[in-house]
Amino acid sequence: MKTLGYYNGKYGELDEMTIPMNDRVCWFGDGVYDAGPCRNYKIFAIDEHIDRFYRNAGLLDMKIPVTKQELKELLEDLVAKMDTGNLFVYYQVTRGTGIRNHVYPEGTGNLWVMLKPAEISDGIKPIKLITTEDTRFLHCNIKTLNLIPSCVASEKARQAGCQEAVFYRPGGRVTECAHSNCHIIRNGTLVTAPADNLILPGIARAHLIRKCKELGIPVNETPYTLEDLYNAEEVIVTSSSNLCLHACEIDGRPVGGRQAELLETIRKALLEEFWDATKEEA
Amino acid sequence: MKTLGYYNGKYGELDEMTIPMNDRVCWFGDGVYDAGPCRNYKIFAIDEHIDRFYRNAGLLDMKIPVTKQELKELLEDLVAKMDTGNLFVYYQVTRGTGIRNHVYPEGTGNLWVMLKPAEISDGIKPIKLITTEDTRFLHCNIKTLNLIPSCVASEKARQAGCQEAVFYRPGGRVTECAHSNCHIIRNGTLVTAPADNLILPGIARAHLIRKCKELGIPVNETPYTLEDLYNAEEVIVTSSSNLCLHACEIDGRPVGGRQAELLETIRKALLEEFWDATKEEA
Repeated sequence: MKTLGYYNGKYGELDEMTIPMNDRVCWFGDGVYDAGPCRNYKIFAIDEHIDRFYRNAGLLDMKIPVTKQELKELLEDLVAKMDTGNLFVYYQVTRGTGIRNHVYPEGTGNLWVMLKPAEISDGIKPIKLITTEDTRFLHCNIKTLNLIPSCVASEKARQAGCQEAVFYRPGGRVTECAHSNCHIIRNGTLVTAPADNLILPGIARAHLIRKCKELGIPVNETPYTLEDLYNAEEVIVTSSSNLCLHACEIDGRPVGGRQAELLETIRKALLEEFWDATKEEA
Repeated sequence: MKTLGYYNGKYGELDEMTIPMNDRVCWFGDGVYDAGPCRNYKIFAIDEHIDRFYRNAGLLDMKIPVTKQELKELLEDLVAKMDTGNLFVYYQVTRGTGIRNHVYPEGTGNLWVMLKPAEISDGIKPIKLITTEDTRFLHCNIKTLNLIPSCVASEKARQAGCQEAVFYRPGGRVTECAHSNCHIIRNGTLVTAPADNLILPGIARAHLIRKCKELGIPVNETPYTLEDLYNAEEVIVTSSSNLCLHACEIDGRPVGGRQAELLETIRKALLEEFWDATKEEA
């Protein structure tokens, strides 16, 4: 198959799949998701993603209709049906089906999977960013389907010829990007927003922090500002779709490029971890 | 028909209708809606609702694939197919269909309609409320499908044996309810939150304000606090589903009941406006 959509046991090419109009996603965006890359039919960091998925569903009292092990096996089975093993592996649970009513329905949620071909960027070419005010809700730690502000910011970035938008809260605190985490190198230290309710605790972010610690690079998980961002030695953007990107421009001004060697060490280490975990069987 | 779901020209009973998995509502909750009551096959305040619907779609650059007049005619045609003329008339537009990607797709949006039997409350029996922190985003003036915090608050109210949840922002400013606007009577004046980005400018709220002015009741559109709410002479809850409710209890404490005559004047005037506009043809 070229793409795959799965819904409660049925699957097919994505553009042929349908779902019930009364799924609560249709009226409320009422669901949580997780996603990560797959290479050579090997899903990267699957246990970390699945753990977060169940944790997020739990935070909103949504019931995933299968166990973690069953989900893992389902994802592996579905990936095996694909024409390529280099994929974006996405799954979500929505809070059941029923006549529109804000209060929760009885029973377990609906399980979705979406697979599409994708390649991880090697992160060599820098990207361009814009900044935009973070007007999102106060549950950004949960990977929900209430993503309109992220879509608006992404479109704003695209229209400016940029690849991502960096959110800042009133007062100038940088939180994260529209669909990535954002970090800076300052005085040779990795500075990254703390994992509170204003950012999504990214799996790629966790890998970055772990890898920096292994490499002896100091890590500082405290809030930083737009000013810090503009003046950073390097600006690093991480997500499960693109493990380690860096920026050369923000809001039209040049940024970073002052710790190229350190950045390259981090980038190589993160990509090698991915290549290694997903290498073809001998 | 008992219920009706409509999607881009196709319609059927709601629980038999499906929509494409790649509609952006499925991945991002990327849509806006509007809704209001219908009685005797007459849709109440239809022009006000349709105007707001197009205004909201415009605020998020979503393109509704029909004109206002065409939508109005479509709704009237669909309502005519129903077994009862007493309905909840709901419609939404979602930002197109395509492989999951935060940036906007080309083209117009997808048009949805949902009809279900419903009766307006006469508002005589008081309701019970809880209060809960308003953790929503800063676009509450737009009627979007990013409604998880409203669902969470509604469920919390239900579990407390209450009918609605009143949101307050840090500092104690009351904004609105999970799916209604909230107002108080203080010293014989209607006090209601101003229509900024923290509340939805309800059509029922507009009718309440207009009716108070007609009745010579002073109206004050300025922020008020939880303290004001607890000490209010009356607490009024309005929405297009239930035009004029009032509360007798908030967070387990008695509230209101000190301007019963004034409240009854307002309630009667609002309900009479509705009965009159939707009365059966002679």
